Amino acid sequence: MYLADRTWPELAETSEQSLAVVPLGSTEQHGPHLPEGTDHMIAEALAREATDRAGVLCTPPIPIGVSSHHRQFHGTLWVDAPVFRDYVESLSRNLTYHGIDRIVYVNAHGGNVAHLREVGRRLHEDRTAYAVEWMWNESIPDLIDEVFETPGPHGGPKETAMIMHIARELVREDRLEDARDGGVVFDYDAERVHGATTFYDAIENSPNGVFGDQTEATPEIGKRLFEAATDQLVALLEWLEAQPLEDLLPEPHVESRAGKR
Amino acid sequence: MYLADRTWPELAETSEQSLAVVPLGSTEQHGPHLPEGTDHMIAEALAREATDRAGVLCTPPIPIGVSSHHRQFHGTLWVDAPVFRDYVESLSRNLTYHGIDRIVYVNAHGGNVAHLREVGRRLHEDRTAYAVEWMWNESIPDLIDEVFETPGPHGGPKETAMIMHIARELVREDRLEDARDGGVVFDYDAERVHGATTFYDAIENSPNGVFGDQTEATPEIGKRLFEAATDQLVALLEWLEAQPLEDLLPEPHVESRAGKR
Amino acid sequence: MYLADRTWPELAETSEQSLAVVPLGSTEQHGPHLPEGTDHMIAEALAREATDRAGVLCTPPIPIGVSSHHRQFHGTLWVDAPVFRDYVESLSRNLTYHGIDRIVYVNAHGGNVAHLREVGRRLHEDRTAYAVEWMWNESIPDLIDEVFETPGPHGGPKETAMIMHIARELVREDRLEDARDGGVVFDYDAERVHGATTFYDAIENSPNGVFGDQTEATPEIGKRLFEAATDQLVALLEWLEAQPLEDLLPEPHVESRAGKR
Amino acid sequence: MYLADRTWPELAETSEQSLAVVPLGSTEQHGPHLPEGTDHMIAEALAREATDRAGVLCTPPIPIGVSSHHRQFHGTLWVDAPVFRDYVESLSRNLTYHGIDRIVYVNAHGGNVAHLREVGRRLHEDRTAYAVEWMWNESIPDLIDEVFETPGPHGGPKETAMIMHIARELVREDRLEDARDGGVVFDYDAERVHGATTFYDAIENSPNGVFGDQTEATPEIGKRLFEAATDQLVALLEWLEAQPLEDLLPEPHVESRAGKR
Amino acid sequence: MYLADRTWPELAETSEQSLAVVPLGSTEQHGPHLPEGTDHMIAEALAREATDRAGVLCTPPIPIGVSSHHRQFHGTLWVDAPVFRDYVESLSRNLTYHGIDRIVYVNAHGGNVAHLREVGRRLHEDRTAYAVEWMWNESIPDLIDEVFETPGPHGGPKETAMIMHIARELVREDRLEDARDGGVVFDYDAERVHGATTFYDAIENSPNGVFGDQTEATPEIGKRLFEAATDQLVALLEWLEAQPLEDLLPEPHVESRAGKR
Amino acid sequence: MYLADRTWPELAETSEQSLAVVPLGSTEQHGPHLPEGTDHMIAEALAREATDRAGVLCTPPIPIGVSSHHRQFHGTLWVDAPVFRDYVESLSRNLTYHGIDRIVYVNAHGGNVAHLREVGRRLHEDRTAYAVEWMWNESIPDLIDEVFETPGPHGGPKETAMIMHIARELVREDRLEDARDGGVVFDYDAERVHGATTFYDAIENSPNGVFGDQTEATPEIGKRLFEAATDQLVALLEWLEAQPLEDLLPEPHVESRAGKR
Repeated sequence: MYLADRTWPELAETSEQSLAVVPLGSTEQHGPHLPEGTDHMIAEALAREATDRAGVLCTPPIPIGVSSHHRQFHGTLWVDAPVFRDYVESLSRNLTYHGIDRIVYVNAHGGNVAHLREVGRRLHEDRTAYAVEWMWNESIPDLIDEVFETPGPHGGPKETAMIMHIARELVREDRLEDARDGGVVFDYDAERVHGATTFYDAIENSPNGVFGDQTEATPEIGKRLFEAATDQLVALLEWLEAQPLEDLLPEPHVESRAGKR
Repeated sequence: MYLADRTWPELAETSEQSLAVVPLGSTEQHGPHLPEGTDHMIAEALAREATDRAGVLCTPPIPIGVSSHHRQFHGTLWVDAPVFRDYVESLSRNLTYHGIDRIVYVNAHGGNVAHLREVGRRLHEDRTAYAVEWMWNESIPDLIDEVFETPGPHGGPKETAMIMHIARELVREDRLEDARDGGVVFDYDAERVHGATTFYDAIENSPNGVFGDQTEATPEIGKRLFEAATDQLVALLEWLEAQPLEDLLPEPHVESRAGKR
Repeated sequence: MYLADRTWPELAETSEQSLAVVPLGSTEQHGPHLPEGTDHMIAEALAREATDRAGVLCTPPIPIGVSSHHRQFHGTLWVDAPVFRDYVESLSRNLTYHGIDRIVYVNAHGGNVAHLREVGRRLHEDRTAYAVEWMWNESIPDLIDEVFETPGPHGGPKETAMIMHIARELVREDRLEDARDGGVVFDYDAERVHGATTFYDAIENSPNGVFGDQTEATPEIGKRLFEAATDQLVALLEWLEAQPLEDLLPEPHVESRAGKR
Repeated sequence: MYLADRTWPELAETSEQSLAVVPLGSTEQHGPHLPEGTDHMIAEALAREATDRAGVLCTPPIPIGVSSHHRQFHGTLWVDAPVFRDYVESLSRNLTYHGIDRIVYVNAHGGNVAHLREVGRRLHEDRTAYAVEWMWNESIPDLIDEVFETPGPHGGPKETAMIMHIARELVREDRLEDARDGGVVFDYDAERVHGATTFYDAIENSPNGVFGDQTEATPEIGKRLFEAATDQLVALLEWLEAQPLEDLLPEPHVESRAGKR
Repeated sequence: MYLADRTWPELAETSEQSLAVVPLGSTEQHGPHLPEGTDHMIAEALAREATDRAGVLCTPPIPIGVSSHHRQFHGTLWVDAPVFRDYVESLSRNLTYHGIDRIVYVNAHGGNVAHLREVGRRLHEDRTAYAVEWMWNESIPDLIDEVFETPGPHGGPKETAMIMHIARELVREDRLEDARDGGVVFDYDAERVHGATTFYDAIENSPNGVFGDQTEATPEIGKRLFEAATDQLVALLEWLEAQPLEDLLPEPHVESRAGKR
Repeated sequence: MYLADRTWPELAETSEQSLAVVPLGSTEQHGPHLPEGTDHMIAEALAREATDRAGVLCTPPIPIGVSSHHRQFHGTLWVDAPVFRDYVESLSRNLTYHGIDRIVYVNAHGGNVAHLREVGRRLHEDRTAYAVEWMWNESIPDLIDEVFETPGPHGGPKETAMIMHIARELVREDRLEDARDGGVVFDYDAERVHGATTFYDAIENSPNGVFGDQTEATPEIGKRLFEAATDQLVALLEWLEAQPLEDLLPEPHVESRAGKR
């Protein structure tokens, strides 16, 4: 139920709803084969499909996130992390004016995770709302392991397959081999120095900005990923709607829990 | 040239460009006949059309702005004004990392104007970039006067005609008369009390949130408005590209202007 | 009733008052003929006169505002816009400690308007107080049109006449023709480029910083303007005092208005 | 040389000046006998007199400061400390745009001291300017000891005498005995509890808000204090003007001082 | 009762306690004879001893404070003043989650005093908690006068004797004469220029960073100081525990005090 | 080389050093068997041992971090995340005044990781310094897997063994079985709901606040862990000292890398 397409009297009919979905992604380099909007396109597609199925409100996507670690590559857009958090927090707090008390951040950019989690914690701690981050690939780890040999953390076959399914015309299929050969198979542990994560930018690990073997991607796999992730998201939305609010808000201090048990 | 659809090597070919367009709107009530996304849809449509024609970079739209004055109506989303300014400022400053030194904020929401202007001033004063706000209806006042009797400041026939042109299926054409009859013809002067603007929220002036006579709108008028505004925007982009940067940056103190004259 | 001249036991006798006036202006260049303090002098004079008549509290003036757009001219003082807003907001919130719940910002500087309006909105939205910006020339547009051919937006005959009335010795009457000839008759529309307001600083539009025909000003006109504006301000104060607080605070969400109608 | 009364071309003639004075006070209760504006009136009077004598620029006074510790008494105005600091800092930084590199904060309110000192330190550490706080009574301790038995830290005979000299009509001379009898002779050490300063508000120590024996004040003493303090301020201004800027800016790290010695 | 050494179930047994102690110092140069940690070592030692005696909770020390005025000397660490205040404020507010409503900041660094006082005021004004700054040497002025000729404000015999008592091995006793001879006997009044405190950094007044005659210090004097100050702190803690909370929170406005008297 | 124990002239001898270590932990519940200071004790012990061996500067520990997720348990102290980041950032920036250009945050609290990483990124992006977070258990994953069956993410045998080695008297050895039986073996995947991490506080997953089988811990294992982690940290410090600064600072934009290759 995409909010931006509705009128306010139509939305008045949904005014008993307490759940809203906010899609978030980024606009940043995704190698020679994928469009810069990859992450927000995936987030929006999943969010709209799942909220349509579940009958839940979906806001427009926030298309620009925390991506400075990709800034050396042309076209990468970003806002500074404190600004991103404040923007999402302000939007979320204001959503509660309409009676929303639970929010799912449908996210498709790893660089946003910690920040969305921090915003969710702020809202949780002062009991404003229960907001939770959801990243599509975290919901279907087994399927990803099954379909790919080298999924890669960024711009790899996972995202390639998803965009093949969502907007095939935006995948430069003639550059998949370039993507694979010019990038690297990322070995996170090998990148560490005596336990410290010493790199800050993607360019330190990959000359073309991406990781994994993009030639593994197909539209069919994209369709399977999309549907499986949508199923997970619908299930999450249904689970959330079914929770009593009190169960979603913070536990009391142990001191005052005696009577509760 | 929509940045989100391009890859970074493609954007590398535009790396000598110094101009970028950022579309901004809002997601807020637009009466019983228009979708909540009206403003950001208009901004994005104009920005993409004009930048395609002018060969200029266009970022994804920022779809949520400063709209708390519409919050009493269902579905209105907003961020607080300081947060909005900081988000646009951060995005703009980071754009300059890629060599951008002039930005046009293609805006379709009156509530954003003062804030975009303030952000533009910040960037101007510290010589980071020249950023200027542009609102479509300000560029074609004569045409608007020509085609409408009662254009209205919000949700009136101007915006109705534009959405009829851009996304006709999103206009509830059976509600145009309701929109007109349930709203008001806004008389700004009459709303003032001894010179003071005493209202803060749209609901104080209009029970259904909109103003003007929406039945004046037609898709044909929408097309004329869209094309005329696009022409203006293209002309602005070309003008901006042609300016020497120094002419766009602040004048020196009068003390040190002697030698300049 | 100028607060700064009173003692606290005297003010205790007014403790049932709910209305206060805060005069605000600027200290910035006003051409070769007017003192830099022009705006705050006007604001203070009007505020003290009207509050004396209406029996309302008046704070000392805030003499320095948002004037960076005049900074190229000697003597212009300013604070950054976020700082100005926070200062006025803090003062206003603290005023409510004494029982004040409505405030009029008597303003005489155009550059402060949007910021005072934003502060007023903040206080309004969280129901702290009802604060409203009032600018003297906005209250008497017809009279201004009647007495001047070319009033000019800054440092023109309007302000010149007012200072002739308030502090005649501070007008350099031998420089009125210089002011007119070295400045320009400002045509706002002509300054726009394809609908965009492209200038940021006064110096871009006027070599001597002012606009309009200052030779139209006389002390007699100044007196008429002063008295007419004072009348308007007194009327506004009386209107405000007569409003029930609830009518000044935000409307509820449409959802919950059913029972209200 | 009061800036607010000058025009910009007149100020252009002083453009080689590097020193400016900013008067600061407060608007807060000063007992039953003194006006709430006492502190800013004193600061302004001293600053204008001394700058006229020394030929130095003087800005308008900042009349509202950090006074929440007097808030229980009617009429006390204040801004929160961080806001006060930011306002003074912003004004000061912007002054440097005109070539000012040294500033004296002529202060007459004890509650501002630490904050002005902090602002001065910020400007000093980043080498923006040299700004120093000056409080009139700190400049003439011997004279104060000579003329008063019980000067009191707030609203006592010191300030009473000064206002008798500056604006005699604002002293309620029939309330001097009330002031003395209803207040207390403040013994700071007696107010401490085992070394801790345990009070936060003036009302905790004085029922009428003031301290000292106000009946000791006379206009003649006020004149002596005013002139002596003005002499000190003029001397400070002259001393400051005579310093090479480098001597006013921070010392380098000891490591790099070897060559300096 | 040092919190960091306890487990949570042990602390559950103290959950009716409303008082906590936070030790604060600095890490900054203390001349050629004392370790940089002098201030936080003193604060921690006094706080742990007194809280053990009084049966009061003691948090770990905050070892780095506001010390930029010592930055020219090697090893001085510091955080900016606004950051320091926010850190202490955040810690203090969060302490109240466990039921704490009164806090003593046991402080041993003069540069922290104004900032701790400001934090205490913030908590006091919004009635979150009663927090009070306590500095050891302020609690025993007579004893200090008795045992030292030239105590010095920083790095003098006071602190030297204390560290001799607390951690004798950290005093470079062979450098005491150097300390005395390379520093100065500080005459605060002599450092003032016409009433203004014109210096910002310690290095402006002392080539080796310290003041006073360090050779007056002995471990025996250190022991006396330590015990006397501990006694004072224990007495303060006991006094605080005995106060009704209402007596520690702000007085109401005078208007509403009529009924109270 | 513990900075707090040194004098400034001694530190002057190390003034060519460019590397500093900042130990950070938390003060928070660690179950019924471990002291609340566990994390900062571990961080300090490792940092001091490794810096002594490597001849590198070590600051005092920052003992209170981001721990609100443990707040339901007595004694947990914390500062809000933005405040924590600003404190560490301010300290780090100020360290560079002494010539430090690389910093290792020796951390022993998982809740600090993302925040230290964000601070490091800020310093990196503006080329102030290269700061990197290091967490002891991340440096020896194989050893941990070897010595423990169920290490647990918080308060488990890892931390228990470390404190047994560092401060055995602070481990309540008679509560190890309680710790194990009252906590849980944490299965992170099982705690997820359709891919979302739905919990915010430790108490949601463990009634006594800890995880893992604490009875696996012995002092001997603690010693092995401590020595192995110290070796890793020493190696990291040596690696960092050997890097040319330019290799630690950000890569340039791909556009300008052509000449670099």
